[in-house]
Amino acid sequence: MSGEFHPPARILMGPGPSNVDPRVLMAMAKPLVGHLDPEFFKIMSSLQDLLRYIFSTKNVQTLPISGTGSAGMEAAFVNVVEPGDRVLVCVNGVFGERMADVAERCGANLRTLSAPWGKAFDLAAVEKELRNFQPKVLAIVHAETSTGVLQPLEEFPKILKNHPDTLLLVDAVTSLGGHPVKVDEWGVDICYSGTQKCLSCPPGLAPITFSQKAMEKTKGRAKKVQSLYLDMIMLGKYWGSERTYHHTAPISMNYALLEALRIVSEEGLERRYERHRRNHLALVAGIEAMGLSMFAEKSYRLWSLNTVSIPAGIDDAKVRKTLLEEYNLEIGGGLGNLKGKIWRVGLMGHSSSETNVLYFLTALEQTLRAQGFEVPRGAGATAAKEFYSRK
Amino acid sequence: MSGEFHPPARILMGPGPSNVDPRVLMAMAKPLVGHLDPEFFKIMSSLQDLLRYIFSTKNVQTLPISGTGSAGMEAAFVNVVEPGDRVLVCVNGVFGERMADVAERCGANLRTLSAPWGKAFDLAAVEKELRNFQPKVLAIVHAETSTGVLQPLEEFPKILKNHPDTLLLVDAVTSLGGHPVKVDEWGVDICYSGTQKCLSCPPGLAPITFSQKAMEKTKGRAKKVQSLYLDMIMLGKYWGSERTYHHTAPISMNYALLEALRIVSEEGLERRYERHRRNHLALVAGIEAMGLSMFAEKSYRLWSLNTVSIPAGIDDAKVRKTLLEEYNLEIGGGLGNLKGKIWRVGLMGHSSSETNVLYFLTALEQTLRAQGFEVPRGAGATAAKEFYSRK
Repeated sequence: MSGEFHPPARILMGPGPSNVDPRVLMAMAKPLVGHLDPEFFKIMSSLQDLLRYIFSTKNVQTLPISGTGSAGMEAAFVNVVEPGDRVLVCVNGVFGERMADVAERCGANLRTLSAPWGKAFDLAAVEKELRNFQPKVLAIVHAETSTGVLQPLEEFPKILKNHPDTLLLVDAVTSLGGHPVKVDEWGVDICYSGTQKCLSCPPGLAPITFSQKAMEKTKGRAKKVQSLYLDMIMLGKYWGSERTYHHTAPISMNYALLEALRIVSEEGLERRYERHRRNHLALVAGIEAMGLSMFAEKSYRLWSLNTVSIPAGIDDAKVRKTLLEEYNLEIGGGLGNLKGKIWRVGLMGHSSSETNVLYFLTALEQTLRAQGFEVPRGAGATAAKEFYSRK
Repeated sequence: MSGEFHPPARILMGPGPSNVDPRVLMAMAKPLVGHLDPEFFKIMSSLQDLLRYIFSTKNVQTLPISGTGSAGMEAAFVNVVEPGDRVLVCVNGVFGERMADVAERCGANLRTLSAPWGKAFDLAAVEKELRNFQPKVLAIVHAETSTGVLQPLEEFPKILKNHPDTLLLVDAVTSLGGHPVKVDEWGVDICYSGTQKCLSCPPGLAPITFSQKAMEKTKGRAKKVQSLYLDMIMLGKYWGSERTYHHTAPISMNYALLEALRIVSEEGLERRYERHRRNHLALVAGIEAMGLSMFAEKSYRLWSLNTVSIPAGIDDAKVRKTLLEEYNLEIGGGLGNLKGKIWRVGLMGHSSSETNVLYFLTALEQTLRAQGFEVPRGAGATAAKEFYSRK
């Protein structure tokens, strides 16, 4: 009915999936064991240890959800939000909008706080809304994949200390493993991510962590969690010492995640962050030298996802098609309001490399010139190379 | 933090995962492409064609959910059940119980119809309850993984023809690919499965199909589906011609499923069913020759999952531990009420082979004898071999 599939060897510089180390691909080819095999339990424990390291947390309830990042988002909300609970969602992009949508589907009494797309939230504005609304849950995106904005969270413990009953829920899909994510230090109660971004594991799992306070809210619910599949109490009994069957864990995906997290720990988080930072800055230097400009506000740019404003007169779809077909290179287009206005260039995990920065700048220059956009020859790559040589 | 994981090469004869063809493992090691890559869209279309073939359906809305079989169950209910809807769930095992739990979490007005564990439902009993309760959804398990019972569905169109507003929802997790599952012919409106059973693909995806009628119910809801991740309207726009982003599909898992389904179609469904039937019958012949007995009622036994009553005086956990540690062989224990009372022996997909039947019977004989249970030497394997030689 269909022939064998031979995927092209893409250079993945979109909003995820990122390229993965061959070690991770090979890990999935290992023979299956059962989800209740004592040998698999060992993997589960190693995964939890490594995830706690990467989330910078001591939370017992730290595990990979058996679904992609969107399932992680849903797991975060369905467990702690009860119908009628006041939930404040900060929206400055598509994934903030989506959090609001998910909260509503849980029956939340929802209020949203908006900031312009491309900018981060001001701490004072969040604090004011916290005081006014007194929410049970404050939800915010750490790394907004649709805009390329990083939301600083270091100061959140200050504004939350007067709200002991509010849970802080954070989307770290595009930051975990590429930017510091300090769950315990920042007072984050629920944090979720995806595997296919800065962790450089194929998509299919969603690392998540719940604080003791978040688990108490979950356990104190009047009614069961609306999703059995994402019920953290049941999941905790499978991932905890009881080892009670809940669902058949995706064995091969867990092999892949273990190998990906081992690679992260071999590199070390600090070195990994610095690599992401450097490659981001080199890319920005190149983009600006080409006469283009970045979309996200300068002080709040993600290192992992770089948003570039599309110059007037340039055909977004045509550029991306050319990059894919002629250069084997994937970048992302804009989502929602930003469709046709920005490109999203991922430098995540394994894909965050000097090679990729130089190749992308070169390919983009060629492609833009073919559309009549004047770029000084080699300007982008030269600026990036100069940046690298400086440090 | 943790060394490389080298899984033992288990013979998987539990309730899933089953062993997979090495072609399927190698498919996961192929390079990643993006979830919006035109090359990935080709895979998606092939997957849908192959799934329609295996479900025996023309349903447009046929796709793999990005989660395991339990996510498939949840996707089935959350889309068609609105709060207050009357839902009738037939319960004769753990997965029927779980369907009732999931329906309740959707706010269903739930009624359950029970049958003894190990037996199938009588058509007249279901018909009577249909008339009394007039449910919007009738849910039943085709292959009850906890008891080894196959529920015949051939006659369901007869009892449903007077209930044009009732949707028939079927769990085919342990039958799809091993037993005939005739979605269109049997008038099934919603049917879901898992990849790790008779399809012999690692766990991580849940094939699902919705009839036009089921989609109309979903589209006519007063409120949004409570799960955004499992929202079939949104999923349909990603898997349909719009190709609208919904979530990042688990790329490598989809590679694996494509290869697994290609293997199914190469073998052909009829030959595949016959292989499952023969190996089941050989196993039963061996079990009975050893002086043991099957748990599920004779006329309604699954070919894919064989339940064996544990003889008095035998230590369940010790037998399974010995099989795993000394014979590298996984079988399942009982779930729920049947814990300690039965073994669940899977003969699913790649694991359904003459080799496995003979090896299991031999290993079980040795293990039981070590616990003082008298078994005529070689009785099980001899009876099975004789069965094979007869046809």
